[in-house]
Amino acid sequence: MAEKKRTEIAELGEFGLIDREVSKFQKKNATTLTGAGDDAAVLDAGDGNVLLVSTDAMLEGIDFDLTYFPMKHLGYKAVTVGVSDILAMNALPEQIMLSLGISSKLSVEALDDFYEGVEFACRELGVDMVGGDTRASLTGFVIGITAVGRAKRDRVVYRSGAKLNDLICITGNLGAAYMGLHLLEREKRVLSDVKDPEPKFAGYEYLLEKYLKPRARKDIIESLAEDGILPSSMIDISDGLASDLMQICKASKCGARIYLERIPIAKQTSAMAEELHADPVVAALNGGEDHELLFTVPLAMQEQVMRMGGIDVIGHVTAGNTGAYLVTPDGSDIRLKAQGFKESDPAK
Amino acid sequence: MAEKKRTEIAELGEFGLIDREVSKFQKKNATTLTGAGDDAAVLDAGDGNVLLVSTDAMLEGIDFDLTYFPMKHLGYKAVTVGVSDILAMNALPEQIMLSLGISSKLSVEALDDFYEGVEFACRELGVDMVGGDTRASLTGFVIGITAVGRAKRDRVVYRSGAKLNDLICITGNLGAAYMGLHLLEREKRVLSDVKDPEPKFAGYEYLLEKYLKPRARKDIIESLAEDGILPSSMIDISDGLASDLMQICKASKCGARIYLERIPIAKQTSAMAEELHADPVVAALNGGEDHELLFTVPLAMQEQVMRMGGIDVIGHVTAGNTGAYLVTPDGSDIRLKAQGFKESDPAK
Repeated sequence: MAEKKRTEIAELGEFGLIDREVSKFQKKNATTLTGAGDDAAVLDAGDGNVLLVSTDAMLEGIDFDLTYFPMKHLGYKAVTVGVSDILAMNALPEQIMLSLGISSKLSVEALDDFYEGVEFACRELGVDMVGGDTRASLTGFVIGITAVGRAKRDRVVYRSGAKLNDLICITGNLGAAYMGLHLLEREKRVLSDVKDPEPKFAGYEYLLEKYLKPRARKDIIESLAEDGILPSSMIDISDGLASDLMQICKASKCGARIYLERIPIAKQTSAMAEELHADPVVAALNGGEDHELLFTVPLAMQEQVMRMGGIDVIGHVTAGNTGAYLVTPDGSDIRLKAQGFKESDPAK
Repeated sequence: MAEKKRTEIAELGEFGLIDREVSKFQKKNATTLTGAGDDAAVLDAGDGNVLLVSTDAMLEGIDFDLTYFPMKHLGYKAVTVGVSDILAMNALPEQIMLSLGISSKLSVEALDDFYEGVEFACRELGVDMVGGDTRASLTGFVIGITAVGRAKRDRVVYRSGAKLNDLICITGNLGAAYMGLHLLEREKRVLSDVKDPEPKFAGYEYLLEKYLKPRARKDIIESLAEDGILPSSMIDISDGLASDLMQICKASKCGARIYLERIPIAKQTSAMAEELHADPVVAALNGGEDHELLFTVPLAMQEQVMRMGGIDVIGHVTAGNTGAYLVTPDGSDIRLKAQGFKESDPAK
């Protein structure tokens, strides 16, 4: 008997794999307005309203390390991760569900801390926790997050709406979460043999907060609505600017040019990068987990967007066949590449 | 510094833990019609309609063993597990999302098989696959399933509606999935040192199918609607009859009496139990994973329910303070106990 062919998943990458599998499915229900391929699925909820549903997983050893990740922060971050996908559709989150795989290593008190963080985030965001599933796990803590949101159908923003010459905008700053992770990993390595370790985090508190307790940018979605700004496309920055920008380019069939010196990077991010002999721009491009929003708006909205505050215009949308480029201060163009699975994360 | 108190999760059990954590949350949104505590959350979808959302996790090593679980069947079963929670609310499933943690052990071809099973189940049930999340896993294959369904608000059936003297009904038969699992585990043990093993499954094909490829009982929900039968309460049998009946009793603040000789058990289940010197009733009560429906109807509907076919009346609802009992043929009463986490599964 011939051996069955074996293709490694790394050959296709995460996005190639999803494309391959999703293409097998046919739409059957009229209430399914969009299928896979955006931050959240869009379902008809009658009267011009839609429901947005997203699902995410966070796995111990891949997405978090319990030796330094406080359970309370992990609960908070799980809500941020789920809710950010809803916000990225220009919708407001209303409900979350948690599906947990709990290893026997965890105590009831540890889970109390976890749910305290969940509850805190839910209160901050006005989100209801409406259930889930809890079971034992043999292999570490597993967190599944389902988030549900709501919007008027004509206010939903997809990845696919970017138009030629639109401005590319970023909220907050990038690379801080990645540098926070680096810092935590370094202290773990350095202190692995030390009894009663005292990690050195002074001066880098912001990086730790961005990694351990990132805030979902509900404030931005509310401000956009108040100011009457409807982005043409939007995505949550979870995989890094390069990868997420390329998702917009792919969905919108467009290219992009972003300018290196315009990428917002916090002082602590640059300082930490210097200490580690790393490039903060690489952290911003490929680090991920910033949970900021990347969106595009028509050129005419430049002033309105700038007035909002906390938003940087970092480039513009180009024609479909031109690719996505980073323009350096000396004027050279670097073609952006998407990152694959988290497994290849250079921090690990 | 005083040591922090450590309580083992086993002390509380799965249901105790969920009660403890869920009680911390306050409802904030008017669209949240019910919170945690049923098979699915119920969200307002306008015009007298509701959306049902459920979330489940299946973890390698706990919920399935890839040494004998074909990937295609696993994909099929994941859809059944998700969709059964929607059906148990008397609603029809419309969408599912899958969130996967993929270990490097799995090839692209294995995932093709998995998604082939997902696609087959989706086609059979008329369900759309609308996205999800895929990431690497260090610790085995992790499957998160989010299912979405829809119903008229006044047709939704909760766990909490059972009334005194209502009839307790079961679809299909119980314990077969559990015996299928036992059989697979036995062959794995026996053949662990054998090259080119040839497991002996002849005569037990039904048990394997019930464990590896259980069908979601959409047919029952459709028949109930056609026949104008609205159950007073309903639950998906995933944890075993005893545990799931006790969930109805708890939510409905009622007791129950079920009769041992009325519990539907397939011939192959009894035969396998005999071979293993096990009690098929114990498999039916505690085995779980049958994905049949347990529901109650008013006494007046007995004839209508019996006419449907494939449904057995196994007992009746009693007053709130009387507990849930199994009545044996000799007339003695055995008080039912709920099972905890899957970890304590005697088959493992």
